[in-house]
Amino acid sequence: MTDFNKSIDKTLISSKYNQLQRRFYEIRNNKIFELFVISIIIFSALMIGANSYDISDTTMQVLSVLDVTITAIFLVEIVIRFIGEPDKKRFFHNFWNIFDTFIVVVSLIPIEDSEMALLGRLVRIFRVLRMVSIIPELRILINSLVKALPQLGYVMLLMFIIFYIYAAVGTTFFAEINPELWGDISISLLTLFRVMTFEDWTDVMYESMTVYSLSWIYYLTFIFFTAFAFLNMVIGIVVNVLEQERQIEADLLNNVSEEPTMQELKQELSEIKALLIEKNNS
Amino acid sequence: MTDFNKSIDKTLISSKYNQLQRRFYEIRNNKIFELFVISIIIFSALMIGANSYDISDTTMQVLSVLDVTITAIFLVEIVIRFIGEPDKKRFFHNFWNIFDTFIVVVSLIPIEDSEMALLGRLVRIFRVLRMVSIIPELRILINSLVKALPQLGYVMLLMFIIFYIYAAVGTTFFAEINPELWGDISISLLTLFRVMTFEDWTDVMYESMTVYSLSWIYYLTFIFFTAFAFLNMVIGIVVNVLEQERQIEADLLNNVSEEPTMQELKQELSEIKALLIEKNNS
Amino acid sequence: MTDFNKSIDKTLISSKYNQLQRRFYEIRNNKIFELFVISIIIFSALMIGANSYDISDTTMQVLSVLDVTITAIFLVEIVIRFIGEPDKKRFFHNFWNIFDTFIVVVSLIPIEDSEMALLGRLVRIFRVLRMVSIIPELRILINSLVKALPQLGYVMLLMFIIFYIYAAVGTTFFAEINPELWGDISISLLTLFRVMTFEDWTDVMYESMTVYSLSWIYYLTFIFFTAFAFLNMVIGIVVNVLEQERQIEADLLNNVSEEPTMQELKQELSEIKALLIEKNNS
Amino acid sequence: MTDFNKSIDKTLISSKYNQLQRRFYEIRNNKIFELFVISIIIFSALMIGANSYDISDTTMQVLSVLDVTITAIFLVEIVIRFIGEPDKKRFFHNFWNIFDTFIVVVSLIPIEDSEMALLGRLVRIFRVLRMVSIIPELRILINSLVKALPQLGYVMLLMFIIFYIYAAVGTTFFAEINPELWGDISISLLTLFRVMTFEDWTDVMYESMTVYSLSWIYYLTFIFFTAFAFLNMVIGIVVNVLEQERQIEADLLNNVSEEPTMQELKQELSEIKALLIEKNNS
Repeated sequence: MTDFNKSIDKTLISSKYNQLQRRFYEIRNNKIFELFVISIIIFSALMIGANSYDISDTTMQVLSVLDVTITAIFLVEIVIRFIGEPDKKRFFHNFWNIFDTFIVVVSLIPIEDSEMALLGRLVRIFRVLRMVSIIPELRILINSLVKALPQLGYVMLLMFIIFYIYAAVGTTFFAEINPELWGDISISLLTLFRVMTFEDWTDVMYESMTVYSLSWIYYLTFIFFTAFAFLNMVIGIVVNVLEQERQIEADLLNNVSEEPTMQELKQELSEIKALLIEKNNS
Repeated sequence: MTDFNKSIDKTLISSKYNQLQRRFYEIRNNKIFELFVISIIIFSALMIGANSYDISDTTMQVLSVLDVTITAIFLVEIVIRFIGEPDKKRFFHNFWNIFDTFIVVVSLIPIEDSEMALLGRLVRIFRVLRMVSIIPELRILINSLVKALPQLGYVMLLMFIIFYIYAAVGTTFFAEINPELWGDISISLLTLFRVMTFEDWTDVMYESMTVYSLSWIYYLTFIFFTAFAFLNMVIGIVVNVLEQERQIEADLLNNVSEEPTMQELKQELSEIKALLIEKNNS
Repeated sequence: MTDFNKSIDKTLISSKYNQLQRRFYEIRNNKIFELFVISIIIFSALMIGANSYDISDTTMQVLSVLDVTITAIFLVEIVIRFIGEPDKKRFFHNFWNIFDTFIVVVSLIPIEDSEMALLGRLVRIFRVLRMVSIIPELRILINSLVKALPQLGYVMLLMFIIFYIYAAVGTTFFAEINPELWGDISISLLTLFRVMTFEDWTDVMYESMTVYSLSWIYYLTFIFFTAFAFLNMVIGIVVNVLEQERQIEADLLNNVSEEPTMQELKQELSEIKALLIEKNNS
Repeated sequence: MTDFNKSIDKTLISSKYNQLQRRFYEIRNNKIFELFVISIIIFSALMIGANSYDISDTTMQVLSVLDVTITAIFLVEIVIRFIGEPDKKRFFHNFWNIFDTFIVVVSLIPIEDSEMALLGRLVRIFRVLRMVSIIPELRILINSLVKALPQLGYVMLLMFIIFYIYAAVGTTFFAEINPELWGDISISLLTLFRVMTFEDWTDVMYESMTVYSLSWIYYLTFIFFTAFAFLNMVIGIVVNVLEQERQIEADLLNNVSEEPTMQELKQELSEIKALLIEKNNS
């Protein structure tokens, strides 16, 4: 009988849990709940901003209380999301859910020593990124950015090879002229990035031209190569995007149209001809 | 009988007003009238320019007389426009009419104390914008710009989130190195905008690298993220514009062509086949 | 008889002239002649370059002799071109012919006083532009650039209005802070162009922020407006170019394809049906 | 008999060589072999980077031993590639094979005197470029870049003409103001390239405006011309790329579709009509 009772208990709990899950699922997809969470995130972002100004001790205390409140709300929200999810496994397959959970869990760690304090502050800053995990349009945007990256892979590899060769050549020739700009290969890479952004690049060039008067060739070819590679990259993306659009359009067209094909029309005509010939021969 | 007279009076006034309205409507749409108003606006713009130079008192007096004249002409022009409009309600539904009226009304306020003088000068400057309200092509251009803005909404939100996070991180780490650039979050946002435009960004970076030697990661990732987001934005607009063009083209094609569809041809063929089969069987 | 002789003379001259014209026409269209003229132009360009270096008196004398030779060759070439042209009126309808003639004629004027010397040097520099008049591909390029300009007219007008308003506002507020940058409206326009190219724009901004701490709004909105208008301009050109391409393609397609239209097929089918019905009824 | 033996020997050698060739061909196309070579190239690139830092004598010796090893591996690899190639002539028709061989051969020269040492170091740097010759995707990318260059030929010629004319004019007027920027035509060309990248261009302009107050016209028109020409170039490439894509697409469509054409359908219809008419008449 205890077994029976237990079984009833379990069923009761299970059914209650299911009820809870459904209710939480509804809350999760509720527009007002979403707007509430977004406004909490914005409020948390404003708090980070406020923290950067000189503030009185009283305000500081108010802010720390508010911070605890925000962390609590975020915790509750994540729990609701988790319980509301019908398929628990899928919850952790989503990158943004893991990100949200991580951010909230780290926020829970009490901040005491100075090193942890820095981590705590950084985590609070990254809470602003929760905006992306909440607003679907931003998520789509980020996903499309991430998807575009591998396409650019080879162009970026080529660009890095160009950078590396020029940095090695630059270090070989200019290291003694100005070690702060060309001291070793990593500093040279940074200097070349600076040249690519045209940031006081003539100062760098004029300096090395005092020793090697033909070094302008080095800078001009570098600018041409990187500009050309960059241009190619941009065009690559544009063409890709246009192709995708065209594909989507073509797919739409194919699905919508249920027009007979030319092939079907010809089949029809052949049948008619056969009928006529048969008749003529009869 | 007085009633009758009154009614005649009213009818007379009304008919006279209608006559006036029609005449003003004609004036409003007159090409010469338009060119006259445009030349007055250009003249008013030149006057603003002339005012910025050191000028003698005599010229100053001439200019102030001319200013009153221009204001008067603009007032008359707005009145003509208003009376000439057949549907009075529609007049104030048009943003540019409200803008014009506002600019002219504020120009009428006599300038005495110094604060008002500044407002008066600003209003006179914004009279140049009346050019947009007069020339339809510019109005179309502005409208298309305004329409394009919401499409960019989410990309700009994403860009602002990136800016905000980097500004918060920058304030946390670099505020003590250079408070003039990283003192609080709003100054940091301005500094990041400066970095985005590549304006002496290496000076900012080298300074923070004296304390945090790895801070180049901060700057380079920021430049990559913003450049990438910006690129995405541009491509978004291009794709959009191309799509609209294609849509317009497709619509044109559909309206023009009254070619029979494949479906209709097949229907025709089926009917012929039916006729033949019927015949064969007979 | 004298009349008769005269007439024969005239005919002889005329026929000789025609012969000359045909021969010059052939020379004009000769590939080797063209290459010769191009190499003379390149040589003349190199001479201008050589002139800019410190050169000995002997070289100077050699160069001045060469200059006379080049001028003579150019004169002969223009004469050949003119005589070779079958339709003399058309010769001066072509902008590039007038340009060439002008450059050559001005080169002929002997240089004595210093002012004329400057003009003479400038004309010699502009002889490089004759390259464009000789090479047809460059001429096509320039023509397409010139054709694209009016399309951009309204966007450039809008951009100028934005510049003018910002310049007027800038002069009003910042003239006292730094008269060298904002002294009058033309200096302000130049300063704004500088801000648009991001050239040390933060120096300009930080200076005005010492007095008006909110003046960053002025600079940021200006950058946004001009960037947006510029973007629009670029997109406008791209769309236009693509449209032209599409048009050319569509025209080609229409000319090539002589495929029967759907309408014709339907006509055919109707006739068949009519035949069958007629048969059935008979 | 010796002849016979010799012939057998030759056949034996030949068959052994053929066996070797086949085996090396397999090695050459082996994925693991390719990855091994790539990792050696990366290792060699890292060594170049390491060389740029201050390193102890022991490390230096280790590095020089490693360098010899890498050169040996590269030599073996090239030999394998050459023997593995079935058609020896084709081997040297490929630019990348020649490049690889050249780099490896020059690496073999022992470095003693200082001038050769520099060449040796440069060759070691350019070994990184072997990455391009190994990875096919990078090779395709480079090839497409090289193919795009001649298309840009005329625009670049036009741009050079603009640069040359402006440089000549600049030297004429500004040489006395600042000989370091405008001293002769080659320095002027470099200064104009600097102005085109907007790098401290206002400093250059303000300096010349102290003497010629209207010289801003010179700078602004130059910026407009180059920006416009550059824009044209970019659009040219984009249009070209899009056209190629469209062509590829169109070709694919034509190959795939084996749908009957309208012409064929009409032919069919004509035959049916003929049959019917024949019948009616019978």
